[in-house]
Amino acid sequence: MKYTASEIISVGTELLLGDIINTDAAFLARELAALGIPCYHQSVVGDNPARLRASLELALSRSDLIFLTGGLGPTADDLTKETAAAVMGKTLVLHEPSYARIRAILAKRNLPETENQKKQAMLPADAFVFDNDYGTAPGFAMTAVCQAGEKTMILLPGPPRELEPLFSERVRPYLAAQTEEMFYSMNIGMYGIGEAAVGHILRDYMEHGQNPTVAPYCGEGEVRLRLTARGKTEEECRALCHAVAARIRDVSCEPYKPGTMNDYIWGMDCDSLQEALVMLLRRKHLTVSAAESCTGGYVAKRITDISGASEVLSGAYVTYSEKTKMAMVGVKAETLQKYSVYSAEVAVEMARGCRLAVGADIGIGITGVAGTSDAQVTQDGEEITVAAGTVYIACTDGVHVTAERLELPPGRRVQTEAREFVRRRASSHALFMALRMAENL
Amino acid sequence: MKYTASEIISVGTELLLGDIINTDAAFLARELAALGIPCYHQSVVGDNPARLRASLELALSRSDLIFLTGGLGPTADDLTKETAAAVMGKTLVLHEPSYARIRAILAKRNLPETENQKKQAMLPADAFVFDNDYGTAPGFAMTAVCQAGEKTMILLPGPPRELEPLFSERVRPYLAAQTEEMFYSMNIGMYGIGEAAVGHILRDYMEHGQNPTVAPYCGEGEVRLRLTARGKTEEECRALCHAVAARIRDVSCEPYKPGTMNDYIWGMDCDSLQEALVMLLRRKHLTVSAAESCTGGYVAKRITDISGASEVLSGAYVTYSEKTKMAMVGVKAETLQKYSVYSAEVAVEMARGCRLAVGADIGIGITGVAGTSDAQVTQDGEEITVAAGTVYIACTDGVHVTAERLELPPGRRVQTEAREFVRRRASSHALFMALRMAENL
Repeated sequence: MKYTASEIISVGTELLLGDIINTDAAFLARELAALGIPCYHQSVVGDNPARLRASLELALSRSDLIFLTGGLGPTADDLTKETAAAVMGKTLVLHEPSYARIRAILAKRNLPETENQKKQAMLPADAFVFDNDYGTAPGFAMTAVCQAGEKTMILLPGPPRELEPLFSERVRPYLAAQTEEMFYSMNIGMYGIGEAAVGHILRDYMEHGQNPTVAPYCGEGEVRLRLTARGKTEEECRALCHAVAARIRDVSCEPYKPGTMNDYIWGMDCDSLQEALVMLLRRKHLTVSAAESCTGGYVAKRITDISGASEVLSGAYVTYSEKTKMAMVGVKAETLQKYSVYSAEVAVEMARGCRLAVGADIGIGITGVAGTSDAQVTQDGEEITVAAGTVYIACTDGVHVTAERLELPPGRRVQTEAREFVRRRASSHALFMALRMAENL
Repeated sequence: MKYTASEIISVGTELLLGDIINTDAAFLARELAALGIPCYHQSVVGDNPARLRASLELALSRSDLIFLTGGLGPTADDLTKETAAAVMGKTLVLHEPSYARIRAILAKRNLPETENQKKQAMLPADAFVFDNDYGTAPGFAMTAVCQAGEKTMILLPGPPRELEPLFSERVRPYLAAQTEEMFYSMNIGMYGIGEAAVGHILRDYMEHGQNPTVAPYCGEGEVRLRLTARGKTEEECRALCHAVAARIRDVSCEPYKPGTMNDYIWGMDCDSLQEALVMLLRRKHLTVSAAESCTGGYVAKRITDISGASEVLSGAYVTYSEKTKMAMVGVKAETLQKYSVYSAEVAVEMARGCRLAVGADIGIGITGVAGTSDAQVTQDGEEITVAAGTVYIACTDGVHVTAERLELPPGRRVQTEAREFVRRRASSHALFMALRMAENL
């Protein structure tokens, strides 16, 4: 790769005021890591030409590839492009194809053309333009030879729903084309094992200089492993990734966890646990239902996040009270009384009940305590405290039944986060149990 | 306020690699804005002492208050504190109270004490320590007089679940105590009106120099208005905010929207629409149920996000297919045939059905097309296309019925985002409709 150091500058007063979170920087950083381009700095400046100029000059002194996001809009305070072009010694001219695109979008939306919109099509004459299919402002790259060598700036629109697909479809190939090598990344999704344990177990794979590189990262309680191979063709890279992925599956997780990595993997090149489940169920023509207490619809919501969910989920229940557990999914009063509402037995009856009620192949039942510890009276009249994070999950296909008791202590979290932590983890666990059951059907 | 310019430096290679999103910077930025402390720069550096030192020296040259987050952990690559102390000319000594706290936490978790953990209790002798109730690493402030004047650095642990409450409970009062003025912020939540419209409608309130300041910001389709008053006492500030909030309620929204701001406000000092709804229902001893099609449990999930939801929601349904709409909540086959599954009539029957089925005061029914446009055959045998984002929502209290047709075109979004956009908006709209209905009960 021709670039030795890159950095990301995000422009926007709304970032400095904390009104929005800088997801663009994280997205670009991850993409740069995958492309093998070192990135040592990220910074945020407001829509202030003097401070932006100072930031650009600092960036030019230490990096040869500079990403600028935001401030490409049509209004007068959008000054990123004008300032960056001035620093690079470029003049802006009207880029006719971009102007035509903008006019077409305005016409489609029945909006009048104004001078402001023309401003969005003003680009350096020698810019490499990235057509934006997701908004009006085009992205572009410009290169100049400064004192410190050849420098490239890439300017992209700020809204993530424009920036992310624009980068994936146009900027990534542009960067990849500048090298004889190409990069290919593959994600492996895991559940039930921590990032630190994965890091230790796979330390040999993560040593410097490996191809593919292997890096674990963590989001919302699920660990991902990213394999990035470099090679001459995509085919070669893909083969390198798949070979290592196959070896990783067989790596023992002892002494951190029982079994091999394979026991914790839910999918390859799949965005989420729920997507893996929906894809598997569709492939096998299976359906699922859920009766949720403490998760209150989180499992159903995650399944229906996925396009095509209608083929695998026709109905599900939120049974938050004992009454609705009995009325909606046929949990028996005796079971509630004998084992208490927080029990594997109740989770199993919920799983069975929702499965039968909608005629699904797999039923999921979840009952537990999400946020705050709850007092329960046992059948002996004894009052016991059920700790926050105690969750029972059951899964059944009508023949097999699995039931698990989870302890997900929310630790030192404020209340809203504690609830989200327990509910998110419990819903992930349920999706994972359903996935394992579906694999065996 | 004694500080004229602040900045935020986030330390962590995981941020540079894009493995985590920098929510800390957004949180601190918003808090600084509320405290009236100008913040002109945010930056991210890796766990690299030379680059961190360069960033600190740059920060000292342009800011008098510098926040550093991350890199306070027990391991060898956590070097923020050591580097910052060196730049400020401070020596680290063991802070016995912090060490005692750390040992107590380790004892509670049955973990052995190591030298590494002692490292976390090493602080400058003259530091102002912020006890951390949410983790092991204490936060602290240190002040030094450099060439460019008096400079303060505040170091805080990186994990948001430690940083956020630690800031709110200890750092905010520390900063507020350094001025004769105090600041008080209040949020007003709104639905059904855009950020730009609110900005125009309230432009007089947003002029420079107002007290309280009024700023709209936008997150996940819901606009918030933040009022920040400064004054001598909290009482005075609160009175200023409430007076302006009362005036804002009566401001006409013409020509952008019909009615006054009051028609779009769902709550004051309330974190979310779902919290406003749950609080209102609890106060009025009312209950709610939902039958969800395209939102697939999103409404139930959001209601049960809130602690105390068990008092207001005992059960809800995900009725994703026509079959389950009939079986679970009694939608009539004729209604489906006559009006099609995407109709106000079906939404109304869903709302009625779920309300009766669980004996709730208010029933919500939602049916529509989330992600991709769907083909439907009308009763005349004609095939029509129902556009993505067409959603029907109904609400009933048994006497009154409201039903609305929404068009939420997902625009130029990639598919997963389009689904999330439509589903999120539709669930917000349903929560808002239920809130308005509950207000009149």
